[in-house]
Amino acid sequence: MTKFHQPIDAAEVPRFAGLSTFMRLPAVATAAGLDIALIGIPWDGGTTNRAGARHGPREVRNMSSLMRSAHHASGVAPFEIANIADVGDLSVNPIDVMDGIARIEAGMAAIVATGALPLAVGGDHLTTLPSLRAVSKGPRGGGKPLGMIHFDAHSDTNDTYFGGNRFTHGTPFRRAIEEGVLDPKRVVQIGIRGSVYEPGEHDWAKAQGIRIIYMEEFVARGPAAVIAEALQIVGQDPTYITFDIDSIDPSMAPGTGTPEIGGFTTREAQQMLRLLGPVNIAGADVVEVAPPFDVGGMTALAGATVMFELMCVMATQVDQRRDG
Amino acid sequence: MTKFHQPIDAAEVPRFAGLSTFMRLPAVATAAGLDIALIGIPWDGGTTNRAGARHGPREVRNMSSLMRSAHHASGVAPFEIANIADVGDLSVNPIDVMDGIARIEAGMAAIVATGALPLAVGGDHLTTLPSLRAVSKGPRGGGKPLGMIHFDAHSDTNDTYFGGNRFTHGTPFRRAIEEGVLDPKRVVQIGIRGSVYEPGEHDWAKAQGIRIIYMEEFVARGPAAVIAEALQIVGQDPTYITFDIDSIDPSMAPGTGTPEIGGFTTREAQQMLRLLGPVNIAGADVVEVAPPFDVGGMTALAGATVMFELMCVMATQVDQRRDG
Amino acid sequence: MTKFHQPIDAAEVPRFAGLSTFMRLPAVATAAGLDIALIGIPWDGGTTNRAGARHGPREVRNMSSLMRSAHHASGVAPFEIANIADVGDLSVNPIDVMDGIARIEAGMAAIVATGALPLAVGGDHLTTLPSLRAVSKGPRGGGKPLGMIHFDAHSDTNDTYFGGNRFTHGTPFRRAIEEGVLDPKRVVQIGIRGSVYEPGEHDWAKAQGIRIIYMEEFVARGPAAVIAEALQIVGQDPTYITFDIDSIDPSMAPGTGTPEIGGFTTREAQQMLRLLGPVNIAGADVVEVAPPFDVGGMTALAGATVMFELMCVMATQVDQRRDG
Amino acid sequence: MTKFHQPIDAAEVPRFAGLSTFMRLPAVATAAGLDIALIGIPWDGGTTNRAGARHGPREVRNMSSLMRSAHHASGVAPFEIANIADVGDLSVNPIDVMDGIARIEAGMAAIVATGALPLAVGGDHLTTLPSLRAVSKGPRGGGKPLGMIHFDAHSDTNDTYFGGNRFTHGTPFRRAIEEGVLDPKRVVQIGIRGSVYEPGEHDWAKAQGIRIIYMEEFVARGPAAVIAEALQIVGQDPTYITFDIDSIDPSMAPGTGTPEIGGFTTREAQQMLRLLGPVNIAGADVVEVAPPFDVGGMTALAGATVMFELMCVMATQVDQRRDG
Amino acid sequence: MTKFHQPIDAAEVPRFAGLSTFMRLPAVATAAGLDIALIGIPWDGGTTNRAGARHGPREVRNMSSLMRSAHHASGVAPFEIANIADVGDLSVNPIDVMDGIARIEAGMAAIVATGALPLAVGGDHLTTLPSLRAVSKGPRGGGKPLGMIHFDAHSDTNDTYFGGNRFTHGTPFRRAIEEGVLDPKRVVQIGIRGSVYEPGEHDWAKAQGIRIIYMEEFVARGPAAVIAEALQIVGQDPTYITFDIDSIDPSMAPGTGTPEIGGFTTREAQQMLRLLGPVNIAGADVVEVAPPFDVGGMTALAGATVMFELMCVMATQVDQRRDG
Amino acid sequence: MTKFHQPIDAAEVPRFAGLSTFMRLPAVATAAGLDIALIGIPWDGGTTNRAGARHGPREVRNMSSLMRSAHHASGVAPFEIANIADVGDLSVNPIDVMDGIARIEAGMAAIVATGALPLAVGGDHLTTLPSLRAVSKGPRGGGKPLGMIHFDAHSDTNDTYFGGNRFTHGTPFRRAIEEGVLDPKRVVQIGIRGSVYEPGEHDWAKAQGIRIIYMEEFVARGPAAVIAEALQIVGQDPTYITFDIDSIDPSMAPGTGTPEIGGFTTREAQQMLRLLGPVNIAGADVVEVAPPFDVGGMTALAGATVMFELMCVMATQVDQRRDG
Repeated sequence: MTKFHQPIDAAEVPRFAGLSTFMRLPAVATAAGLDIALIGIPWDGGTTNRAGARHGPREVRNMSSLMRSAHHASGVAPFEIANIADVGDLSVNPIDVMDGIARIEAGMAAIVATGALPLAVGGDHLTTLPSLRAVSKGPRGGGKPLGMIHFDAHSDTNDTYFGGNRFTHGTPFRRAIEEGVLDPKRVVQIGIRGSVYEPGEHDWAKAQGIRIIYMEEFVARGPAAVIAEALQIVGQDPTYITFDIDSIDPSMAPGTGTPEIGGFTTREAQQMLRLLGPVNIAGADVVEVAPPFDVGGMTALAGATVMFELMCVMATQVDQRRDG
Repeated sequence: MTKFHQPIDAAEVPRFAGLSTFMRLPAVATAAGLDIALIGIPWDGGTTNRAGARHGPREVRNMSSLMRSAHHASGVAPFEIANIADVGDLSVNPIDVMDGIARIEAGMAAIVATGALPLAVGGDHLTTLPSLRAVSKGPRGGGKPLGMIHFDAHSDTNDTYFGGNRFTHGTPFRRAIEEGVLDPKRVVQIGIRGSVYEPGEHDWAKAQGIRIIYMEEFVARGPAAVIAEALQIVGQDPTYITFDIDSIDPSMAPGTGTPEIGGFTTREAQQMLRLLGPVNIAGADVVEVAPPFDVGGMTALAGATVMFELMCVMATQVDQRRDG
Repeated sequence: MTKFHQPIDAAEVPRFAGLSTFMRLPAVATAAGLDIALIGIPWDGGTTNRAGARHGPREVRNMSSLMRSAHHASGVAPFEIANIADVGDLSVNPIDVMDGIARIEAGMAAIVATGALPLAVGGDHLTTLPSLRAVSKGPRGGGKPLGMIHFDAHSDTNDTYFGGNRFTHGTPFRRAIEEGVLDPKRVVQIGIRGSVYEPGEHDWAKAQGIRIIYMEEFVARGPAAVIAEALQIVGQDPTYITFDIDSIDPSMAPGTGTPEIGGFTTREAQQMLRLLGPVNIAGADVVEVAPPFDVGGMTALAGATVMFELMCVMATQVDQRRDG
Repeated sequence: MTKFHQPIDAAEVPRFAGLSTFMRLPAVATAAGLDIALIGIPWDGGTTNRAGARHGPREVRNMSSLMRSAHHASGVAPFEIANIADVGDLSVNPIDVMDGIARIEAGMAAIVATGALPLAVGGDHLTTLPSLRAVSKGPRGGGKPLGMIHFDAHSDTNDTYFGGNRFTHGTPFRRAIEEGVLDPKRVVQIGIRGSVYEPGEHDWAKAQGIRIIYMEEFVARGPAAVIAEALQIVGQDPTYITFDIDSIDPSMAPGTGTPEIGGFTTREAQQMLRLLGPVNIAGADVVEVAPPFDVGGMTALAGATVMFELMCVMATQVDQRRDG
Repeated sequence: MTKFHQPIDAAEVPRFAGLSTFMRLPAVATAAGLDIALIGIPWDGGTTNRAGARHGPREVRNMSSLMRSAHHASGVAPFEIANIADVGDLSVNPIDVMDGIARIEAGMAAIVATGALPLAVGGDHLTTLPSLRAVSKGPRGGGKPLGMIHFDAHSDTNDTYFGGNRFTHGTPFRRAIEEGVLDPKRVVQIGIRGSVYEPGEHDWAKAQGIRIIYMEEFVARGPAAVIAEALQIVGQDPTYITFDIDSIDPSMAPGTGTPEIGGFTTREAQQMLRLLGPVNIAGADVVEVAPPFDVGGMTALAGATVMFELMCVMATQVDQRRDG
Repeated sequence: MTKFHQPIDAAEVPRFAGLSTFMRLPAVATAAGLDIALIGIPWDGGTTNRAGARHGPREVRNMSSLMRSAHHASGVAPFEIANIADVGDLSVNPIDVMDGIARIEAGMAAIVATGALPLAVGGDHLTTLPSLRAVSKGPRGGGKPLGMIHFDAHSDTNDTYFGGNRFTHGTPFRRAIEEGVLDPKRVVQIGIRGSVYEPGEHDWAKAQGIRIIYMEEFVARGPAAVIAEALQIVGQDPTYITFDIDSIDPSMAPGTGTPEIGGFTTREAQQMLRLLGPVNIAGADVVEVAPPFDVGGMTALAGATVMFELMCVMATQVDQRRDG
């Protein structure tokens, strides 16, 4: 018998049965009392090409029904050591970008205010901007810029689109730095690849101090060395983990708006995620799962498993803090 | 402001957002207090060829997010006149046929006992057998055999399969008649078609008094005449409505285990369902939606809309009884 | 040898070869000199649920490669009697609704100004609002409100969404009437069906004088009678034809954002389109083809063929006016 | 106990089990002793646009596992009254058109020589040319031109393609007439529709005496009247039935190379096929099922059922001749 | 000219033509005279979540048409050195678990009794239990417990499901050990990964002596080292090879009931299988290919190729024993 | 402002908008003035099993809309240093193999004659034969046999098929050697794998001097060592690069006619392509992308990206020669 929320037992209720929630956990009305809040952000208002990430939370919930209660490699049993539940989807506005961002920030701020750690599923990568705002300004962020470990094929630090449009899924981290919610010197981007708009596309990001580890460097050095460096970059201050599913290879995550071949294998992604224990995680998300472009639910499964891996790391930290 | 459960407002929460429940209604823990209980029965243990209907409730819930609050033709606003909610999925056992049937009967009996009218989504057609048992023995059935209006490509009145197997999705109505929960003289089957095992395959059913209206007769007479006859057959005693999605043409409902070309159009199905007002409906179900064989969610959409049509008819009856 | 643009000859260049343009016609830089301009409007900024119509023009172009040079029933050879070409896609902005609308209006106005009749492929139904503006204000519209024959499952005359959002694909025709570019007394909507938000959802439209022919009435009266009435409603003043692909049944047009079962067969749609000869067509469009939700290219094929049918009617009118 | 080949009993061996043959009948090495030979012709060498019909026989075999032993409407039990088996696929050559045609003719001639009635599954429509040759020259044809009832969206009576190419799936019936294996005055084409290369595309065919019943005429008159006329046209001399799956609507048969909207419903097709009893059928085929373009196996299912309907008619004729 | 069964020559009969059998070999009625019997076991009665493996044999047969006659790396020409054929599918019962298991055991026992080595395609992993029984009790097993090399994401050594259900695809190897047909000390499981029901889920298996090589250890050590250890574990006594397709990554084998990201690449799987020469293989299977969840036939192709690799190893052993 | 053709700016025109050309470059009527001509060859007349590569150019064009203007790893901005455009599709004949080959050779010869480097997208691998002829005889080839770096799962050096058929997609390089347009001693084939027709299938190729690097050797040595050897083999004389998409693993490139598991990752392919700078590239192609078998556009994306990688290498060479 345990004191925390438990997933529905698959030996009693088959995985295809019951309402679909993240990890088959209870759906709760508030994050109050939770250690970790699993959140959907069904919004892709910043998507400039292939939209569809608005449908991400529903399908990640569906495929998360394949997750079980403990981690086979680490032995972590997250639901034994942390109180975790599905707090539902944030309020969004699919046809108004600025209102959409504002609603997400408000929703995330309300969750963060309870002290729960947010673990969100997007939505496109623009959803991370309001999340960063809320986390940075929340109790853990203390109003200071966050560090960030960023898994992605794209740097997402462009300036504008269509001339004046400053808020798209290609610009969130430039905005976050400009707004002071992200500390570029504590940002590392891993897996960046794919053709660019111009040779100097990443110059601004680098000039701010962002460390870009291109896929080629990742391949040469391997997951362990790369994460070791990432840990040093973000240090012990509050840090956000953002995982764009397009960092994973399109064969393993085809359901995304901007696929780039030559990506991480899921195995490499898992290796990296399992090494994030030392990071002071203030929040995390998995974004850009776009079910209309998925095949066979592969991408939603990858997204759900990335979420599970992050949840295990975060639960361990919760447990350690409780004990400490 | 209304006194009954209301679906989430799609003008406030987009249709792709929020947890997925039937008609975006609240998920409730009990049928007590409900007029109509929307139920999932995720079980296909009786399927002899292409299984998959166990995944039906989840996908019908997903596509039911496209349903709105009122019927455009009848003007019925079901949630204004009846208390309706999603009571979740019945407990099932995917690997034990007899235990599966027993669990469904028990679950359905508990719902029926509250006085709520059950409107279920299967699952394969064998799930209708325990539902018939529970409804027949429940407060509305009064322990007497039920009448039934049965939309289907198949009569499902075979005797056995593999020699001794008496419980499959091809045999439920022979069992129901043998068990005395179904009155064959008050059963009408509409839309029957497709090749048969032998020329006399339906002789037993006809000998019991079941009225089989083959697709050819349906085409010749039309929906109105056929339903008029059906109303006479079932009369004013408690009657079950069972809608096998394979009654609809495979182009409109490809996601089913035993498709037969030449089926109902959805338009014809809607025409018939809207004429069921005079029936004393004691329960209803939509079965054999098998998402692994679906394409583009068409079948789940058809299933969700059939459910909506039935719900509107049933809500009107609830309202009339309340007024009466 | 002909004086007008001709499609690539499929007996010389296979249908799968060559760049993909509407009807395999030349891609031209300007509408000047054209009788009919085939236009793409790849924009779905008004979509509140399942986006994807932004990809419509590309896939309709691809499937239009199956169209040939003459109409088998009417004998019309459109490319012999009218100068028609593909003028490409209008400039759009995928992440800013108001800028998107403005760009479409400007692009459409430039085409209309040349005297060419626009025949556009959306895009979602909000794209029709700027098109109506441009056509109404253009040389044929003379600044007066247009009549409209509107094939659709939905009336699209709602007021707002998410409180203050007045521009979505559910509201274009209320806006068009308010703006004085559409004359509600000369508007007929055919095929309306599907559940509604409230029983009185269409009251405003009807109060303005819009004639709504629900699917049920269409089924009862048939295509010929319905179009006869439509011709009377729009009369001889300039009229816009707008064809929402979701008016067609989801089995024949699954690739759309808001499918509703019980729709037109393509055969019925063709029957109606072929009767539009007497209408003074000032412009036309086919909207809501959403390829990410399509299966097997069916919807794009339906869209391309609807476009072909409209083009044949419009070319005949061009020819008659030239002769007249 | 029966004297003829029987399908595997689905109550003993599930439909998904066992080797895949037409109707689950035995695969035999020769047509000798058969009344009806079920034949695959996996060849699409005449296809000018979307190839794939070469894969037709395999998938039609797979979906024919859904067929049972008797016809629900006519009561015919084909395997009780005729000896029928799967004789496998004819030898073909996928990369040499003329060799491909020659092989098919030789293979078909060998079957026809045994006295068995051929019922073939293509393959593209060019496969019908060598079949017509073989049947015409075989024991039933007596070297005289055959009559033909032809269900199709296309007349397939063009002359050449790419200048000199006389053998494509758009030309078989012009060749057959030129070669004297088809009597144009005893040919009726039903369901013709879709855009044409030029207004006079069918003039040659009509001049030869072919009766073309366009889809529009079919809709106006209905299946019974159309088939009544067809029976008169072909009379009592040997006649070939050829069923191009693209005569059926793309929503019901999307898996074909040249889809045209507005086609037959499967119900209409079944109605017509069941009226063919009076025809002196010398052979039949179902062509243009192209699995790479199919969705959910719908087209293969339609093809298998058309085959079943034809088989029941042919078996009845066999039985009547035997008795007569 | 060879003395053994040969596949159909693809240079004479295209790969898409002819009846579909394993490796395009003859379908034979008995295993008598064969060295290796290729067997289908179309049964998924033990599947607790996503059923569909019942359709595995048919699709593996279809995709095995891409296999040719010799191994490019080893140079082995299996059909030159061993007599191999397709013996069809075992009799199964899709709706009765215990009868299903009994039928499979009986069918496999009959094959094993002929002296042929069984190489089976499932079906779910519960099918391996009756196969182990039959092989263990057969001439090669000598009634003694078998060793086993087990490629899988899951250990499949759970005890019960739904309380009392002891026979599911998650429990076969606990049952096999309890029944004495499997020697846990000679069992090695490779590739185990994915979340578990509880941290101690594998304790029982380990306590019995099963060696579990988790994916993480596999990645660290590589295929050669892992197989070297496996060879030592199983030694020279009769050993069964069981290959669950879900051991392969979901991107390469999506069509399976319980996918887990981070799996083997097919390349790694091939590397391991090619090193199995020293094992005394008494039988082998490939299980859990579930076509309804497959995309593009990838999983069936992987399954067919794994079968081909195993067949080459087994044929070499047959040849060596014959020579020895 | 640049002097060369530029792709449409995706920050002004979304990637889903505009006509679909390779890399969103202008479609031009002639290769004159170009440094590199991007060419479609929509022809699969040599395909013996699963046709569909005829549709390759269209879908590669579609997915190439995801490519941007510069290479993230090398920093090459190809459109700044070379004049590149889409010259459209070559004329082909889908139903006559010999005419098809002749047309391709003529079309390619006309392009090569302008001095532009051809970079083509097939089509099946037989298209490479006429390309080799044209390039060998063109200004760069000087009438001498070409060297070739050949990425493929198959050697494609068989002799005949169906007895006398010498021109298929399995035979191009034997023909090219026989014809003297390819120098076997300067040919290296990388990635060869998959079962073979007989153990000695590659003996002829090896005897001619072709160096075959099987997948197993590639895995053992790695991309860098393999390409280093390849560079030595082809030396400094004109060399053709041919990339069969089936060299890539089926999970990353499922849409191809003859998939073989265990292929290159896209990452490995990119690593190799980026090392081709020292090769004297006289032309290149990407072949066997077969969209009807693709899933989610993965294969077309892989093909487009391989094309982009090759284009960057070729543009650099153009630039170096211009400077040199």
